[in-house]
Parts: sequence; C-alpha cells; structure tokens
Amino acid sequence: MGSKGVSVFLSVLAFVVIEASIGAQAARRVLLPPKPDPADAAATARWLVSQNSWGTLSTINDELGGAPFGHVVSFSDGLPNKGQGIPYFYLTTLDVTARNAMKDARSSFAVSEIALGSCGKTDPQNPTCAKLTLTGKLKVVDKNSKEGEFAKAALFSKHSEMKGWPNDHDFLFFKLEIENLFLIDWFGGAKPLTVEQYLHPRK
Amino acid sequence: MGSKGVSVFLSVLAFVVIEASIGAQAARRVLLPPKPDPADAAATARWLVSQNSWGTLSTINDELGGAPFGHVVSFSDGLPNKGQGIPYFYLTTLDVTARNAMKDARSSFAVSEIALGSCGKTDPQNPTCAKLTLTGKLKVVDKNSKEGEFAKAALFSKHSEMKGWPNDHDFLFFKLEIENLFLIDWFGGAKPLTVEQYLHPRK
Repeated sequence: MGSKGVSVFLSVLAFVVIEASIGAQAARRVLLPPKPDPADAAATARWLVSQNSWGTLSTINDELGGAPFGHVVSFSDGLPNKGQGIPYFYLTTLDVTARNAMKDARSSFAVSEIALGSCGKTDPQNPTCAKLTLTGKLKVVDKNSKEGEFAKAALFSKHSEMKGWPNDHDFLFFKLEIENLFLIDWFGGAKPLTVEQYLHPRK
Repeated sequence: MGSKGVSVFLSVLAFVVIEASIGAQAARRVLLPPKPDPADAAATARWLVSQNSWGTLSTINDELGGAPFGHVVSFSDGLPNKGQGIPYFYLTTLDVTARNAMKDARSSFAVSEIALGSCGKTDPQNPTCAKLTLTGKLKVVDKNSKEGEFAKAALFSKHSEMKGWPNDHDFLFFKLEIENLFLIDWFGGAKPLTVEQYLHPRK
C-alpha cells in the first residue's frame, strides 16, 4: 500500500470509528438547537425539558419506609421541538412509580444537559452543565380527554416504541403538575424561576 | 497541496471531527466492558454502578412539603473498573441535596444503561435498557478516616475536576448505605437482588 493508500485507509478507518462510536445519541446531538444563554433561566429550563427524552422521576415509596424513590423513565413535553414545558409520562401500574404516585402524588422530575451530550469535558456536576428539577404532583391524565390526546401525541412522537407496548399492562398517561423549579445552569446557586415564567417564557 | 497532503489533511480533519463529536462520554463508551448477561442480576447492577459516572440522587425536601427531590450528581464506587458497589458523592452543603440528607438520611440513587450509550435505538424506558435504583441512607463520610481516603481516591480518579473545586464551599464526602436494590434489566419486572448478593457477587 502506498502512502496515499495508507492515508485514505486511515481516513476511512477514522470515519468507521466515528460511525461506531457516536450512535443514536450523538446523531441527535447534531440536531440539538443551541443552548440558550444561561442568564435566561426560563429558556434554559424549557430547552432542557424539550430536548431531553428521559429523566429520573422520584416518588415517595411507602414499601421502603417512605424513601424518595427515583426511577429512570421516558417522557415528552410535546411534539419534537414544540414542547410546552409540562412533562408527560406513560407508566404502567405494574411498576412501583405509578403505584407510589397514586397513593401520594408528591413527585419530582430531574433532567440534565449531560444526557444531551453538550457538556463536553465538563464534569456532570459542574454547575455550568445545566440541570433542572421540577417538583410537584404526579397525576393521571384521562386518556379520553383533550389533554390525554395531547399526552399521547407528545409521547408517541418521541418514543415510537410505546405504540406497541402491551395493552394488558395497564399503561396510563401521567403528567407532572409543576409547583417549583430548581435550575442550576451557572455558578452562584439555583436560578430564580417561577412556574409562570417557565410556562410562559418571553420569546 | 499534493494528493498525499490532501489525504493527511483529511485524516487530521476526521480526527478533529471525532474529537469534537464524541466528547468524553463516547470516548468512554469505546472502553465500556461488555454488559453482563441480564440473568445475572448482581453483575448487571455492579456494571451499571461501576460504569456510570453520574446519576440522580433523591432526598426528602422539607422546604418543598417533604417532596422526593431528585438532583443530578457525579459519583464513584471506586477506582476506574475497580468499583466496589457503594456510591460515594462529593456534595456541598450550599446545595439542597446535602442539607436534605443531613436532616433526613432517607435517599435513593438511580442510574441507567441509557447514560452509557449502549441501549442503541431501544427506548430508554424499555426494560431491556437496564436501570437500577439503590435505596438507603445518605451519610457523611469522615474525610480523615480510611473510608474518607477511599471516597476521595474513588471520586477524584473519575472526576479530576473535583480536585480544584473551591475549598470554601463546604464540600463533604457522602456515601449511600444501601438497604434495597431495584433492578430492571429484562421483561418481567424487577429482578430479585439482595444487598449481600450485590456487594459480594460471585465472579
């Protein structure tokens, strides 16, 4: 193989390595809308919720002495890039999180920029790698209501696999009724952000 | 530029693209040890804790009506690929999670295979994309004890940035004293797994 051949081979190899390594998550990263200015708390929080597709939903677990019980779940706040800020879930009552919520609705939902892949080499706990906790009540959404239709469209458009999940598994739509926001997106502690500012951000 | 020069340029460009696109997370993915057989609950749980570098730590938030409060944090269970299963954290008491734990130690820590990038196109909530919740008590570790030295080495080896975090921010080492494990790594609900099986898995 001549030097040109070696170089071409290296180029091809490099791209194979890229292809093998990046996978679905980074392919998504390419399409990620730019991160808002950290000074704009509402826009940053809405970006985190709109762009993430999964997070950790915490409920009170009576079976474990009332422990705060986090569980990794999929979610959606609307059609892709048309999020409205409120996270919806598709949970089976076979699973402990849904059962917890139906006994005690107190809940929180945590997402982070680290899952979007845009924090680079910054440590996941570094405050500039943005993280958001929404606290409130986790409530069942009537699947036959207008909101139920919204939840279904929001979830199934981002999680197409859900369409085929078994009918006999008692899947229900849930929403987090947000009462408090805790956003870390820069040094200096949590950013002040009201539910009103979050749900109706200035464009 | 001759054809050799062009090829070398392309190779360099390709590697720059790799560097820019992959980032720390995917570079790490290349080094990921293979996922254990889902039938081996202890090995799968230990793999999830050993390979993840961040997760969601939930505590009881008195300031928010006793809500279960999830927060994304970095952690480590030992030196790279030498994890011992117990998650250690480096938290500042300026942050609400540490303050919560010092009032009420009930806590859980949730990690998922989705953060490792090895679930492919499987939905994050699909049971075959493994997820683990460790429930127990979140306790301060004396930094001057042998365990404090272990926690420091475990955390700082995986999170080198922590070495430079400000001394005046009251960072303390914490550990989760595990009392219960909730592992989903296949269809059919949570896998039975005791703390003893998890901490001392058969090789």
